[in-house]
Order: sequence, then structure tokens, then C-alpha cells
Amino acid sequence: MSKGSIVTFGEVIMRLSPPGVNKMKQSRELEFYFGGTEMNVAASLAQLGLPVKHVGNVSNDFVGEAAIACMNGYGITTSHINKVKHPLGLYFMEVGSGLRASQITYNRLHGSFANIGPDQVDWEAVLDGVSHFHWTGISPAISEGAYQTLKAGLALALAKGITITTDPAYRSNLWQYGRNGHEVLAELVGLSTVFIGGVNEVNEILGTEFPFCEEGFIAAAKRLMENYPNITKVYDKVRTGLSATHQKIYAQAWDGTTYLSTAEIEITDVVDRIGTGDAYAAGLIYGLQTGMDDAEAIAFANAACAIKHTIAGDVNLAGFAEIQEVAKGNVSGRLKR
Amino acid sequence: MSKGSIVTFGEVIMRLSPPGVNKMKQSRELEFYFGGTEMNVAASLAQLGLPVKHVGNVSNDFVGEAAIACMNGYGITTSHINKVKHPLGLYFMEVGSGLRASQITYNRLHGSFANIGPDQVDWEAVLDGVSHFHWTGISPAISEGAYQTLKAGLALALAKGITITTDPAYRSNLWQYGRNGHEVLAELVGLSTVFIGGVNEVNEILGTEFPFCEEGFIAAAKRLMENYPNITKVYDKVRTGLSATHQKIYAQAWDGTTYLSTAEIEITDVVDRIGTGDAYAAGLIYGLQTGMDDAEAIAFANAACAIKHTIAGDVNLAGFAEIQEVAKGNVSGRLKR
Amino acid sequence: MSKGSIVTFGEVIMRLSPPGVNKMKQSRELEFYFGGTEMNVAASLAQLGLPVKHVGNVSNDFVGEAAIACMNGYGITTSHINKVKHPLGLYFMEVGSGLRASQITYNRLHGSFANIGPDQVDWEAVLDGVSHFHWTGISPAISEGAYQTLKAGLALALAKGITITTDPAYRSNLWQYGRNGHEVLAELVGLSTVFIGGVNEVNEILGTEFPFCEEGFIAAAKRLMENYPNITKVYDKVRTGLSATHQKIYAQAWDGTTYLSTAEIEITDVVDRIGTGDAYAAGLIYGLQTGMDDAEAIAFANAACAIKHTIAGDVNLAGFAEIQEVAKGNVSGRLKR
Amino acid sequence: MSKGSIVTFGEVIMRLSPPGVNKMKQSRELEFYFGGTEMNVAASLAQLGLPVKHVGNVSNDFVGEAAIACMNGYGITTSHINKVKHPLGLYFMEVGSGLRASQITYNRLHGSFANIGPDQVDWEAVLDGVSHFHWTGISPAISEGAYQTLKAGLALALAKGITITTDPAYRSNLWQYGRNGHEVLAELVGLSTVFIGGVNEVNEILGTEFPFCEEGFIAAAKRLMENYPNITKVYDKVRTGLSATHQKIYAQAWDGTTYLSTAEIEITDVVDRIGTGDAYAAGLIYGLQTGMDDAEAIAFANAACAIKHTIAGDVNLAGFAEIQEVAKGNVSGRLKR
Amino acid sequence: MSKGSIVTFGEVIMRLSPPGVNKMKQSRELEFYFGGTEMNVAASLAQLGLPVKHVGNVSNDFVGEAAIACMNGYGITTSHINKVKHPLGLYFMEVGSGLRASQITYNRLHGSFANIGPDQVDWEAVLDGVSHFHWTGISPAISEGAYQTLKAGLALALAKGITITTDPAYRSNLWQYGRNGHEVLAELVGLSTVFIGGVNEVNEILGTEFPFCEEGFIAAAKRLMENYPNITKVYDKVRTGLSATHQKIYAQAWDGTTYLSTAEIEITDVVDRIGTGDAYAAGLIYGLQTGMDDAEAIAFANAACAIKHTIAGDVNLAGFAEIQEVAKGNVSGRLKR
Amino acid sequence: MSKGSIVTFGEVIMRLSPPGVNKMKQSRELEFYFGGTEMNVAASLAQLGLPVKHVGNVSNDFVGEAAIACMNGYGITTSHINKVKHPLGLYFMEVGSGLRASQITYNRLHGSFANIGPDQVDWEAVLDGVSHFHWTGISPAISEGAYQTLKAGLALALAKGITITTDPAYRSNLWQYGRNGHEVLAELVGLSTVFIGGVNEVNEILGTEFPFCEEGFIAAAKRLMENYPNITKVYDKVRTGLSATHQKIYAQAWDGTTYLSTAEIEITDVVDRIGTGDAYAAGLIYGLQTGMDDAEAIAFANAACAIKHTIAGDVNLAGFAEIQEVAKGNVSGRLKR
Repeated sequence: MSKGSIVTFGEVIMRLSPPGVNKMKQSRELEFYFGGTEMNVAASLAQLGLPVKHVGNVSNDFVGEAAIACMNGYGITTSHINKVKHPLGLYFMEVGSGLRASQITYNRLHGSFANIGPDQVDWEAVLDGVSHFHWTGISPAISEGAYQTLKAGLALALAKGITITTDPAYRSNLWQYGRNGHEVLAELVGLSTVFIGGVNEVNEILGTEFPFCEEGFIAAAKRLMENYPNITKVYDKVRTGLSATHQKIYAQAWDGTTYLSTAEIEITDVVDRIGTGDAYAAGLIYGLQTGMDDAEAIAFANAACAIKHTIAGDVNLAGFAEIQEVAKGNVSGRLKR
Repeated sequence: MSKGSIVTFGEVIMRLSPPGVNKMKQSRELEFYFGGTEMNVAASLAQLGLPVKHVGNVSNDFVGEAAIACMNGYGITTSHINKVKHPLGLYFMEVGSGLRASQITYNRLHGSFANIGPDQVDWEAVLDGVSHFHWTGISPAISEGAYQTLKAGLALALAKGITITTDPAYRSNLWQYGRNGHEVLAELVGLSTVFIGGVNEVNEILGTEFPFCEEGFIAAAKRLMENYPNITKVYDKVRTGLSATHQKIYAQAWDGTTYLSTAEIEITDVVDRIGTGDAYAAGLIYGLQTGMDDAEAIAFANAACAIKHTIAGDVNLAGFAEIQEVAKGNVSGRLKR
Repeated sequence: MSKGSIVTFGEVIMRLSPPGVNKMKQSRELEFYFGGTEMNVAASLAQLGLPVKHVGNVSNDFVGEAAIACMNGYGITTSHINKVKHPLGLYFMEVGSGLRASQITYNRLHGSFANIGPDQVDWEAVLDGVSHFHWTGISPAISEGAYQTLKAGLALALAKGITITTDPAYRSNLWQYGRNGHEVLAELVGLSTVFIGGVNEVNEILGTEFPFCEEGFIAAAKRLMENYPNITKVYDKVRTGLSATHQKIYAQAWDGTTYLSTAEIEITDVVDRIGTGDAYAAGLIYGLQTGMDDAEAIAFANAACAIKHTIAGDVNLAGFAEIQEVAKGNVSGRLKR
Repeated sequence: MSKGSIVTFGEVIMRLSPPGVNKMKQSRELEFYFGGTEMNVAASLAQLGLPVKHVGNVSNDFVGEAAIACMNGYGITTSHINKVKHPLGLYFMEVGSGLRASQITYNRLHGSFANIGPDQVDWEAVLDGVSHFHWTGISPAISEGAYQTLKAGLALALAKGITITTDPAYRSNLWQYGRNGHEVLAELVGLSTVFIGGVNEVNEILGTEFPFCEEGFIAAAKRLMENYPNITKVYDKVRTGLSATHQKIYAQAWDGTTYLSTAEIEITDVVDRIGTGDAYAAGLIYGLQTGMDDAEAIAFANAACAIKHTIAGDVNLAGFAEIQEVAKGNVSGRLKR
Repeated sequence: MSKGSIVTFGEVIMRLSPPGVNKMKQSRELEFYFGGTEMNVAASLAQLGLPVKHVGNVSNDFVGEAAIACMNGYGITTSHINKVKHPLGLYFMEVGSGLRASQITYNRLHGSFANIGPDQVDWEAVLDGVSHFHWTGISPAISEGAYQTLKAGLALALAKGITITTDPAYRSNLWQYGRNGHEVLAELVGLSTVFIGGVNEVNEILGTEFPFCEEGFIAAAKRLMENYPNITKVYDKVRTGLSATHQKIYAQAWDGTTYLSTAEIEITDVVDRIGTGDAYAAGLIYGLQTGMDDAEAIAFANAACAIKHTIAGDVNLAGFAEIQEVAKGNVSGRLKR
Repeated sequence: MSKGSIVTFGEVIMRLSPPGVNKMKQSRELEFYFGGTEMNVAASLAQLGLPVKHVGNVSNDFVGEAAIACMNGYGITTSHINKVKHPLGLYFMEVGSGLRASQITYNRLHGSFANIGPDQVDWEAVLDGVSHFHWTGISPAISEGAYQTLKAGLALALAKGITITTDPAYRSNLWQYGRNGHEVLAELVGLSTVFIGGVNEVNEILGTEFPFCEEGFIAAAKRLMENYPNITKVYDKVRTGLSATHQKIYAQAWDGTTYLSTAEIEITDVVDRIGTGDAYAAGLIYGLQTGMDDAEAIAFANAACAIKHTIAGDVNLAGFAEIQEVAKGNVSGRLKR
């Protein structure tokens, strides 16, 4: 059976960072990237050769045009992107090093995406030919309009039998427009079929206190599936942060009956941590869309996540062969001529 | 008689531009500057050695801290700057070249300065020891709070007999918060003592149609002084733009009885046009504060404006000697060893 | 009648230049651009919003992938680009300044495009839905395979009634694979319907000696149409080079009965001359595809050419509004807020 | 009791380094910083919000002006900086990496600071309102004038009951103007009240041979206090250098009766080692000025030292919260949103 | 006995890399270096003060001139370099990081060096005053002409009693011009007197399967000397690659009777791996030319290799003192003032 | 008759400039070049293929090594360069633009070259095989040692019949070591055979007041030859500076009987004015050494001077063909493919 295309929905946001690990006050220029957790997933999937549409708003100015050009360059279909008069959301990031943490400050709550609404997206047209829909908990946290737009899309997608992955990250410092984030996320997870997350995410949504271990993960996944019967799979990624530049990650999964996990990968020279979770989600969706089994899929997803740490910017630009080599355990970084 | 210090009030805004004359979509990094028309005036005056305080809000994050560090570096007193939770205003600018115009897109209407209000500024404390207050028409165009804050300051300054310069630039694409810009500017010009502007600015405020020539300037200045008896001087700068990189400027003044004008200076290699009007205002205020007569002051102001075209960023970093040399007609650019 | 899409055929070549006007031996890094005369036309048209396919080969490595990503970013459809094992063609360019000329050295004759052949392009598929085909005299000069591939495409396009524009630039230092360039160009111009060129180009192809003036242009255009009855229009661009950074250009046209010409535009701060001819061709094709009359089309084309001189890289990134403003004579470069 | 301001005395020196870890001969540009061990301390303290004056000479040219602008930007009061005709001292540094050591070559012995003399500093005015004076052993090593100027300041400060910290680093390759460094340092330590140093520094000054361990440190501190009764505290920092980019540090203190020490912090990705000792001194002085007890102060100082390793340039730009978090043992570098 | 000069023969090739660890598709500029395994050896030796001539072709354009200027800058004698009409060979390299491997793609098989032939080199003139000749297995792999040119030089050098070192690296993806690489290397090793290589290299040439350990190395070296009686010494370097940025190396030697080896050096922050083997060869040749014994020579060579990992570009720019310090075991990277 | 090699004597000085036309206080890095008026002449001549030795001191550190590598890269023979313990002389330069002048501040009077002395140069060895000696008035202005060293070299060169060119620039702000500059220059011009200079230079040395015109030049040249009978030729360059970026130059000569002059060249986009006079001197010496007649030589020298204005750094990197094309009047800057 031939798979259809993938759709992602979310904010296209601009990241602005001083060069290297400089602080803002010692810099004269800023490197910038267009990203956003869902767009990052879209970009990774497009880089890997799958057809992907991204849905969202950008600003109706040369910044928005540059964002679209960036998405086109990744291979994302941008015909469902709206241009609106509000400025593109953005954030500044001072990149940390070693024991010094990175810091972020946002300017997004009055931006292009925050001003989206259900009337701006023709979900019937968007979902035509689509077999996979991906969303995260960031989008409904931005504004009422973003929440309503997403909900409309999910309801239609679920009705059409489209696979729906969710990465329901709860961030307490968002959710300023009046709704209760836990309730909204619970509602929207109920409209999804695949859960990307683990103990922390389940505890956030259900208000449970599962412990942070294999048994806790399995118990949490079971409870989640009981509460949300549309959910048929739970895929997780476990990170240990030793310093801003030294991380370890492995992946695990629960399909209702079986627990799977990957070897842990150690990453010693982190170039850029932003988007590593998105690289994981994209790797997983790639596996699901291309017929990998769960063990292959989480190994590929974990490797994608690991290799993203070595790439500047929000998007995993590594090719299939590079990722697969890491997935197979070759992490010696030996020169390819 | 010893002069007091100078105070400026207005938005500290961040400019973000691709390197050189690149377009956004062909760039990976952005040069940035902290500026804002009134802060630029403050910075120029501080560079020339006069004591200056700037009043306004910045964001309570590392961006706002960098803005304050920038102002401190210029020598501006920043003890009356508030840090607030709203993001610092900013704009993106694609710098043009030759026949291609520069383009700007703003993100300021929900920023730190837009959220200022009269309760945030202790004008009595600010105006202590101050002999000069400078404002422009940009500030009251941003928000009701900015307008009210400025008006309170002007009223007190006028009552204290402080010299008040205004550069009442009307920009139609601002003024989105509900008030009529022409009316507000007229009201605030009435609270000022020195008008920096010419035929265009008078026509904007009074709704007149004085022609764009020496006679028109004199007639406009006379009418302005009739309408606003606090105004005792009108200083203007006349620009001819041949291309984005080729400009000509001269200055003129009317003091109620006498018309003065400077020679025209031709600028053939424009490095940065932003802040050239502010350099003019700063040059003028410098002249007024240091006892130059009007002819000297407009020559110095015009030279300051001219030399700013050769300096990147928002602020005129040229020293007194460099400006004075241009004011005296030495424009050959001969190497100083 | 709704117009179809546009197809261009030619080498995607990499330009490598020291920063600014540096010489190679004083540099440590090189700026690079992907271009090529026909791809530049495609990119300009895609930037202006028209559907364009580019046909040609790139290398089957990360250089070729970057070239494809670049084309995707411009909005060009790249599904007919082949990846082959030969390295991407490239050239080094030292950019001149004022009285110092730019210099170029090529590495293209064993590259990806030089190794193309008719069996690598499915012209039926490529030309499906196409209303316009553009080619230049560079392609058949590279290799026998490039010549044969192009000829096959032109023959089919002509048979399908597609409009075919040609910019038949003859470069004597190419044509190293054995064929006579004049003869080949004459043959292929015979398969085209619109000639982009003037006295020089006609003289090169026909071996004539028409003089370089309005009368000469008309006479040359008439003779060309006599010899090649498929040609129904001749559009030309006349350049006067005062220095590497100072140029003047105007456009002229002959439709068999009427001579048209534009005002001359003076460009005083040339940022990048590469691709200015391609910007002209793209402007012209844009006019033809969108229903402009000839006077409008050559004014738009000439303005596109002029504004390209202010943009780094091979491609005209100016938008429709920016070009049209120059076409209407506004060349003062005044800041747009 | 409200604390007064802090004064530092010393050379403002310019550091010039090739980008990254490049060698000079492979570079075309140099990054530069204004620093100097005492100015670095001043800058750190000003960044943390304390009032600080720096005293010393700079060159009377645009280099000296840039140095003053830099200090102003840090928030240092520069009204006691003299501008003299001698060039600003400077050094070139090739930054090492891993097993390759950094290298430095100086050009300071005929510079602005070397030409200072007691008649150039009005110590009465400088010390007005001051509660803390900081000096290091570098200053008296530069020239007779620097020695005499410092001695005059210390004598007055001691008489006024000001706390005087000294970091009496002995560098054998300085001290070229004729005096015996050991004798001079011994004399000046006698005019100080807090000693920042340990076994090495005591052995240098007293000619003793205390061993490099906890007992040795306590014995050395005791002996020092016996010899110099003005000294009431000894604070030390112990560094283990594994490679140019891998270091470990902890702090210890002796107050005449009690030994204190901190946990050791491991720094794995050293960005810049210059100024880490100054960050320690500044952290310590910050603690002393703000009422921390000794255990808190050395933990804060050690954390300040550690985090400085992650910041380019001479000055610790980390804020209070960032330092305090490391002081409390959070060294995982987890992203702050 | 006074030693003569050194000659190296091989391709001068240009390396082009995105900045840092960027991928090509996320870059706008490329850093470039002129190198080539044999030229790197020449450059290292010239940097260390020995007289060296390099022999090979470069392109007759500004790229070739820049390559010659680069070699002159290193101190290499370039009077035997030919300028030919073919473009300089080059390769693109994406530098990896941690678990992501570096990738290389070549454009060299139709370049300047590939077009060399025996008639282009006057070996009698080249070898005048020469005491050492160095070649590698890359040169004869490029083209028949390169092979024939090298063979002619080796035959004459051997006849003149010149010491001949060979680093006979076999790369399977070269050797496209028709000859069997194993056979050619075997033939040319027979014309050499010192073998730089170990188990892998011997197995490649002899088709043996000696194991990768000390005993295997000794057995392989013995067999090699039996087969090629001109070979009197075998020097090897053993690398363990933990990641792209973490390596370990030691050196070993066999002189027919005695086995020698060095301590292993760990390199934790690899800046650039290219040319580290060449640094080893150059260190070894330096030792041989300056009278070190074998133990000293391999320690120096191993240290040269180690320190090269910390230097960007193809050439070891570390000075004698820096290398010798590492050779003596000082790898703490402590700052040298 | 075969010409010998050329020798130049003078300071190798380091130039440090903010990027572009930035001021120091708005910069974080500095571009640097090694130059010096006589070394610039040497470098130009070496670039043009003539054998040149430069004589002078550099610092015995990595800065001096980089200076030597730079000279080697230009092709200058550096075997007579001494390494001394004093730091390399340097200057900072803020590059102006248009009406803003460039500014320079020096740090050279205690540097490597200032500490040279006659015992450090073996003039017999240096002048072996030399046919041309070039010096300028900068060298004897630096220190007594530099003066004495130069005088010894000139006396020997004159005795050997070597052609001696002098560019006797008098700079009043040098000459701080005690001697009268006018007297010293007069003495040393008496030891020279070719004078590069015009009315200004003659008036400086002789204390005359010849007017600035053709007649004045001829009269000045005649008087000079009367006073200094060793002088047989006078070559001059006349510059008109319209702005920092717009200059005009022509050359003139007097050989005792005939006046010659070139056409004036206009330079509209000055990239770098430093070293343009040296490019003139080098062009002239090139002409003299290669057998051009005076008319050819001054045209070549004037063109070399003109084209240097378009090249960053101190040295004219243009090749013979590029210069000759400008000398022949082709200043249109048309692209060379």
C-alpha cells in the first residue's frame, strides 16, 4: 500500500543567536534560523525524501518570504502557508557551553502564528492525500486561535483515519491566553493515535506520578492507552544531560504488549541541541511511513536525534545513510572519502 | 552660566540587517544595532562629551541588558531606564544600494516601550539638573501610554523653563492605537520651544501647503511660531536623494527675524543612512548647549549629519574634530597620520 | 488563455569568489553561489511566482544536493534534474573594482552537465504543460551530449508550438569538443521563436557586419527574421560599461514592423554583474508570460537587469514591486518603511 | 552599614588573537579585547551591579577611546582614567587547544600605563567614598612609575581603613626596570589586608618552601599573617590543568583559625582561560562587599571562576543568577527557556 | 656530513570546506586550503627550517598562482612547479563532529596534476643537491602520467643513493585510469628505502594477512624487507579513532633487528584531522635529516602528528619547540607567556 | 646585459584596521597586514617576478614569524631579515569613507626596526649581485640606528655603482630621536641616483618654494640635480584627492633634458589607499629593471599606482597584464573570462 503525504501544523519561528557561545552583549551580529518544532519535523522528513506539507502563518513581509524560501529549500510544500500582517514570531538564544546553560527569551505571543484562526486553514484541502498528521503541545499553548485551528484539523484527520502523532510537550510559561494547558492537551491527545513521550509527559497530562524508569514508562503508557483509546503506540526518548555539550540518549517504545528499547548513544561534542527532539519525531515518523518495524524505527529515531546534536540549526540535515550508520552503532566518526 | 544635562525620551529599538546589501533570504546572519531616534541623539551627545540621560523601557532579559550595556558604552546615563517583561521592539532592514531602496519591517507595537505609562517615569527625578529635553514624533505614535508619559514630561519640563527640542516626524503607518497623529503632534509641539523641521513637517502639523523653497520655509516657520508661541527657533535640514548611496544635504534656520543657511554637502558613498537626521539634531543641540551661534550650530549640525552617512549603525561616532573639519568645508577625506 | 509553465535547460554551475574585491591569494575563504545562465532565468521567474522547471545534471554528492536545495529554495521544480557521478562544474571569479576587471577561470568541461546526453532527458515528460522554453548558446558549447540533448528538446518544443526564447551568446573560448559554434548556434536559432540579442549576436551567427546603432539593430533583426522564419521577435539590451562598478543599460525591440526602446538607466554602485543579462531575459519572459505588451515588457526587463546589479549572487532576488518601481523611473533608492 | 564603592588600579591592555585556535600566520584578522587583570575584576564587579572605579592610563587616540568606551559599557566609572600620548599596551595571543598550549607575546613596556606616575593620580579624590581597593602584582612589575603610583595609593587606602585585596602574582619575565620583584611585592603585601593566593604565592614572596597541599596552605597562610599583620584573611584557588581545554578548580580559605574549601568543579570545554583568576577575585570581592560569609564567598568565587572558562574575552559576563546556580552545584547546563 | 635538501612529488590540491562543522547546504562560503599529502610533508619540513623542493603541476591561472604563493609562504622552493592549462584538482569536505563522520568528494581526475608526464619534469635538475625524496601511493593512483613521472624520478633517485621514504597508501576509489594499484605500489616500493606504514599497508601490497598487533607489525616488516631489499627501515603510526573529535595515536618502528614504540597520546579536541599522517611523515623525515636516533625520531613524529590535530588546515604549523614539548610528554596545554 | 637583484631596506610594520570603514569602538576584530613602504615595493616587484631581498628587523616571536611568512608568500627573499627581542612596530588605522578621513595612530618607536644598528646588517653580503637599491625617508626618521644602518648601505651601494632610488618623504611627526630630518634627507639624497618625488619633496629638502605646476616641477628637478650631481632622473606622481574614495593621478618625469607626463587616471571606488605610492615606485623600478623607456616606465608606474587603489592591503597584487592594460588606457573594468 502506497503511503500518502505528511502534514505538520505549527509556528514557524525565527531563532536569533550570537555566534558561537557568545553572550548578546559581546556580539555585533546574530545567526538566524527558521524553525519551530513541527516545521523541524517537516523539514527532516522532506530532507529524507518524503512529501510533507506544513500549515501555519508567516508574516507578509521579507521576513516571511525568507521563511518560505527556507522551507522550500528543505523541500517542504508551502502552498498552505498564509501570509498575514503580524510579525513573525522569534526568540533570542544565548548558547551555553559546558556548565553554562543556554538561555532563551521569546517574542511570539503577538506574532503571525498567534493570530491564526480556523477560518484561515482549509483542512479539507490540506488533508487531501495525507496519511500522517503531526502536532505538538506548543501550538495550542500560543493562542485560542491556534488551539481552535489545530482542534478542527485533528477532528477531521481522525475522521479520515489519518495516523496522528503528538509530542504533547507542556511548557508552563506558555499558556498565557486563558485556557488550562493540561486540559487542552488531554483533549487533543484524545484526538491522536500515536503518543511521542514518556513518564514526564503522561504525568503532566494525567496528573499521575509514575516513576522515571522502565516499569514506570510501561505503566504510564498502559494508563494512557486506557484513558485515550485512540492511542495505539507510545514512543519515548530518554535523555541524560551531563553538561550543555555532553548528553546521552536512548529510545523506548510500548505497543500495548511489548517493551522495546535501544542502546544508549553518548554525544560528547554537542553543536546544537535545538531540534534534537524534533529529529527524533521525524526519524520515528520516517520509520512508520516507510515500513520499518518498531525496533528499527526507534533505533533510527534515536540515531537521528543523536546526529542532530552535531548539526547547527533547527533541522536534522543528515542524510538517510548517515543516520542509518549511527543507528547500526557506527559512532567512530571515521572520514568517508 | 553652566549648562545642565540633557534628557531624551523614546523607544530603544533593535535594528537587524543582513550583512552589506544582502537580502534576508540570501543571508544566514544579521548585524544588529540598538538605536531609536531619541537614543541616537543621546548617544551622539554623550560621544561629544555632554551629560545625557535617556528615559524609556527595555525588556527584562538579556536583550534588554545588552541594550543597556550599549547605552552605557556610548556614555549615556541609564539609571532611568525601566526593565519590563515585554520584548524589546525591533525591526528588520534590508539595506538597498544605488537604485534599489532599503526596506524596513517593524515588530514594535507590543514591545517594552509600547507598554510604558506615566506611572513608570518619575519626571521630577529625571528632570533634576536638566537644561535640555529632546523628543520626536515617533514616541507618541507608538501607544497611548507613550503619549501620556511624554506629555507629562513635557508639561513639567516647560514649567521648569527647560529648552525643549522637537523633531515631530509624522509617520502615517504608525498611529495604530486610536489617536489622530496630527492632533497629538500639534498639542505636543505646543509644549516645545525649538522646532527641528521644515516645510514638510509644518504642513503635516498645520495642514498647510507651504511650498518647498526658502520662502516657503520662512513662511512656514513664521506661521508655526504664530500658532505655537513657545517655539522661538526653527532649524531645518534639506535632503536631496539621488540614489540610496548618493545624497546632498544643507541646513537652514529661522529665528523669527533672520534666515540662515549652510553650503550643501554632497555625500557620494553612503555607508548607512539610518540616524543621519538624529545626528543633525544632536549636532544642533550640541551647538545650542555649548554656546555656538546659529550659523555655527547649523553648520556643525549639517556636518554631523553628513559624516554620519559614512558610519555604520544608528549613532554618529565621529568626534568633535572630525565633524568640525567637515563643517569648515574640508571634505577631501585626506588621511590623518 | 491560461499560460503553462516554463522550462529552462542548462548547466548548474558553482561560482566561487573571494570576499569583496579580494584576490584569491589574499583570501582564506570563498563565497559560493549556484547559478548558470539558464538556471538564473529559472530562478528569477520562480521568485516572481511563475512555475518553472529546470533540466540538467548535477553531481551525485553533497555538492549536487546543495545545488538542488538551492534551486528548491528559489522555487524551481527540480524533479527533472539528474544526479550523475561527475563533479559539478564550477568556476573561480576574482571580482574587480573600478578600473580593475573581474577575472574568471573555469572547471566545467568534464563536469556533470558536460556528461549529459539525450537519453538522460525524457523531453515528452519535461514539456508536458509547458508554454515557454528558454535556452542559451552556452549549453551547446559545452559538449556534444549537451548539444544533442538540447536539439532534441527544441525540436519537440517547436513541434508542440511552445514559445522558445534564445540568448545565443557565442563564447569563443568554449566550443572545445569539435563542433563549429557558429554553425551550431545558427541551426538551433532556427528552432527558436524569440531572439534575445542584438547586433553583436546577429553578426556572430550570420557572419554579417551590421553597425552598432539603432539602424544597425533594425537591419540585423530584419535579416535574422528573413533567415530564420520561426523568429518573430527580437529583444535586445544595450550596455555601456564605464567601469567595473559603473554601467548604463537600455533595452530595444523589433517585432518585424516597429522599433521600441526604453530610457537608459545608470547604475553607479554595481554590487554584482553576474546574471544581469539573465535578469533581463527573465524579466522579458515574465512580461511575455503575464501579458505585458512589448513596451512594458522591455521596460520591466531592463529594470530587472538594472536592479540585479545591486544584488549579490547570480539571481535577481528583487520582487515584482521593486522591479516595477525602477521600470517606472523611480531610481532614487528612497527608504521604504 | 552601607558599603562604599570599589577601586581597582592597573594597566588596561589590549589582547589580539587570531580567530578560534588559529595561529597568527594562518590568519588575516585578529579578535581583540580590552582587559588587564585589575580591570577585569572591575568589570566583573560592575556587571554584578556594584559601583567600581578603575584607575590607570590609556592612550590619547582612538584606541584609548575605544578602551574607555569598553569600560563604560561594562559599567565601570572611568572618570579617573588619564589619556597620555604613549600607545596602549597590548599583547598577541595564539590560543591553544587540547595538548597545544596558548602562547603570548607582549608590547607593553613603553605603553600608556608604563608611563604613569604618582603625580598623575589624585588618590584623595579617587579614594573618596571607597570601601575596597584591589591590586595585583602585575602593576608594580611594569615600571618604577607604576610601582610608586600604586604604593602611594595603598598607603593612603590603608590609612583610611579601606579593605585592600591583593593578588600578588609574581611573573619573572616582567620586572625589567631594575627593582627586585620579590622585595617590592613583600613591601606592598604589607600594605594590604586580604591576600588572594596560596602556597605558590607565599613561597614566592617569603622565599619559603611550603608543600602544595592543605597543610601546606594553612602553614603558609599562618606564616604570611605572622609576617604581615595587616593581612587578616587568605583566599586561594587551586587549579589542575589536564589540557588547554580541560581544567579542574576548587577554592580554599584561611581566616587565622578555620580552614574552608569548596567542592571541585570540572570544566570540560574551555572557551577562554584568560581572566578566570580575575573572575575568582571579583567573585570573592563581591561576596565580601555583599555580606556573604566565607564559605558562601569562596563557593561564589569558585563558581565565577568556573563559568568564566565558558565565556570569550577577559571579563566574566555571567550574571549573578548564572554564577549562583553553579555555586550551588547545578552544572548540567540545562537550557533555560 | 652535511645533509642536502628534500624533494617531494605530488598533487597540489585545494580543499574547500564549509565553516566549522556545517554542511554544504547550510553554508554560503567555504574555507579553502592548498594541500596534498606530499606537499603537506614539504610544508611541515620547510616550517621546521629544512630546505625542501616540491615537484608537481598547478593550473596556469589565478588559482595556481595562489597555490604557489601559499607554498612560498610555507618556505617551499617552487621553482620546479609547472603551470599547465588544466584546472587545479580540488575536493569538497564536510567536516564531521563527534559521531558524525567527515565526508569528501573529489574533482581531481582531469586536473593539473593528472595531466603531468615525464617530459614535464627534469629529474636531473630536481635531484641536484637532494638527500631525501618522499612520495606516497596517492600520486601513481591519479593517472598514467603521474605514475610514469614518479617512476622516472624514483629510479634516478635510487641510482643517486638518495634516501627514499614512501607512504604507500592504497585507496581503492582512486586507480581509475587502468592500472592495478597493488602491482604499481609494489613496483614503486621496490624503488624505495624507507617504508612508512604498518600491517594494513603491508597486507595491501603483499596480499598478506598479518594480524593488527606488535607481533604482526614485526612479522609484516620483516616480510617486507625480504621482498624489497632496498627497504631498511619501517616506521608506523597506530591510530584509534573514538569519534571524529577524539583520537589516540602512538608510533612504532622496526629496523630489521629492534622494535621500538612510543607512548600513546590522547587527543580530545580534534580541530582538523587532515594532514595528521603527513605531519607524522614530516616529523619522521625531520628526525632522519637532523640526526635523531630512531626512538627520538618516532617520538618527534608522533608528537608532530598529535599536535597537527589541533591546527586547522593541511599543514602542521607548530614549531620545533612546541612539537618537542609534546614529544617529551608535556600535554597539559599550559599557557606560555 | 643581465640585471641583478633588487634590495630594499626598511621597517616591516603591521597594520591593524577595523573591518570596512568601521571605527575601532564599534568593532570586535581587526584586519591586519604586514607592510611598510619599502617592503611594499619589494613585494610588488617580487609579485612581478623580479628577484628582491628585503633588509630589516622583525620581532623574535610568532608575530615576526608571521611577518616573514608573509614576505615569503610574496616571493621576497628574507634571508637578511634579523629577529630581535623588541616587538614588531605596528599602527592602527580607521579607514575613512567619502568625506570622512582615515586616521592612523602608531606604535613603532620602540619596535624591532627602531632597534636596528649598522652592526646588524652585513651590507657586503646583502649587496652581492644587486643592481638596484631602494630606500625612503621613513627609515632614517625612526631612530639613530636606522639612519646609520641606511647610510652605511647607501655609501657602499653608491661605491659599487648600484642604481639607488629614493622616495624621500618627509614626515614631521616622525624624527623624534634628535636629528634634523631635512638635513638627514639632504645628506642621503646625495648618496642616491634616482629621485622619486616632485615639487613638494624638493621644497622640503632644499627649503625652496617652487610652485606646484609643470614649470615648477622642471625647475625643482633641475635645481635638485645641480645640488646632488649623483641624481640623474626625477620621477613624480601627482595626486588630486576629491574624497577618501575618489582620486585622480598622473605621472611626470625629468631626465635633465626632457619633460614627460602621462594621461590622468580617475579612480572612483578606492578600496585601499595605503601603498599606492609604493606601487608607483615599484612600477617605476620594474620599468627601469626591465628596459622600458621613461615614457613606458611612468605609464606603467602610474597604472600600477591606480590599480593598487582597488586592492586591499599594502601591496599591489595585480599582475603584469592587469597593470599593462590600465597603462594602455583600458579602464572600463570589463570582465575577463
